[in-house]
Amino acid sequence: MLVDGSVRRMLDALGSPDPTPGGGSASALASAAGASLLLMVARLPKTRNGSDDDRAALATASTALAALRETFIDAIDADTAAYDRVVAAYKMPKATADAQSARKEAIQRALVAATEVPLSVVRASAEALAHAAAVAAHGNASAASDVGVAVALLRAGAHGARLNVEINLGGLADKAYAERARQEVVRAAESAALDADNADALLR
Amino acid sequence: MLVDGSVRRMLDALGSPDPTPGGGSASALASAAGASLLLMVARLPKTRNGSDDDRAALATASTALAALRETFIDAIDADTAAYDRVVAAYKMPKATADAQSARKEAIQRALVAATEVPLSVVRASAEALAHAAAVAAHGNASAASDVGVAVALLRAGAHGARLNVEINLGGLADKAYAERARQEVVRAAESAALDADNADALLR
Repeated sequence: MLVDGSVRRMLDALGSPDPTPGGGSASALASAAGASLLLMVARLPKTRNGSDDDRAALATASTALAALRETFIDAIDADTAAYDRVVAAYKMPKATADAQSARKEAIQRALVAATEVPLSVVRASAEALAHAAAVAAHGNASAASDVGVAVALLRAGAHGARLNVEINLGGLADKAYAERARQEVVRAAESAALDADNADALLR
Repeated sequence: MLVDGSVRRMLDALGSPDPTPGGGSASALASAAGASLLLMVARLPKTRNGSDDDRAALATASTALAALRETFIDAIDADTAAYDRVVAAYKMPKATADAQSARKEAIQRALVAATEVPLSVVRASAEALAHAAAVAAHGNASAASDVGVAVALLRAGAHGARLNVEINLGGLADKAYAERARQEVVRAAESAALDADNADALLR
């Protein structure tokens, strides 16, 4: 598991010419770091004004962000596992018509799974960014730069995961599924960008 | 050391309400992952056209990116150490005039060091992004999404580190140093954004 190995080991693995881990796992890592930073600010004992309003808003954000953070952490390894299955499917024998058909099916199953993981990261990044404005408005003002970094990381994670969804779409035989995934990724990425801009505006 | 601990441990530490690690270390992590992905693509045995031109351009990028990656990896822990020293300096005694003066000096020394680390991350992110166009143009076309993720991560790392430089500037007593740092961070961030846009344009 990448997440149980050292940070240096994961960075070395991202830098090696082996096909995995790649951009999908790196995008999940960025969103995991972004959600963690938002969570940190939401958990600080000192809030913007020390009001009950602050505390209630930050508690709601904390609960959601803690769950989303787990989605990102799981996706770091799930993305690598899914892509490894795509590579393995492409390497299946294709000498006979039966083998070709089994290979084709395995590739399609693997491609769908390799699309679902980054799709979940785009979706969860948009959800995390939907809480960024509350953290920016109610969190300790001296942690504003942490919120700004969190927004930048979640923006990068959403964008990177979107690229990883889109690269698979052309290869999917189920065109209805591909079209649904394409529409959902555009919608989630647009909502992520809007919420990121809103949170950034509160930090200025 | 954060980089020798597990990925999960670093993400947990970013999410805890303790003051460090925070946005500075997270920004360095994002740029380290971005530089690693560019390095991965530059090291792939398959290049855009298999030409000598490709190989020469990618070898130049590889050498630079491997060094920049070390700068980012070092900055992950250096940023946390520098910020810990700022917190420690603020906690120094201030009962007498001598103690107040020693505390003031220690805070200033610590703030300069805490500015230098994210400044080095902005600078190195801009340098890494200066190689992104070459990797996008000469690297294996099937790794285009990895280059896109790398650009997004380095963009986020540069922006996040810039926020961490800027938050210190107001507290610096040496106004000439603060002004030089302010100008350098703007210049490096603008160059980073321009090179990121250029690389993204090559990927479309």
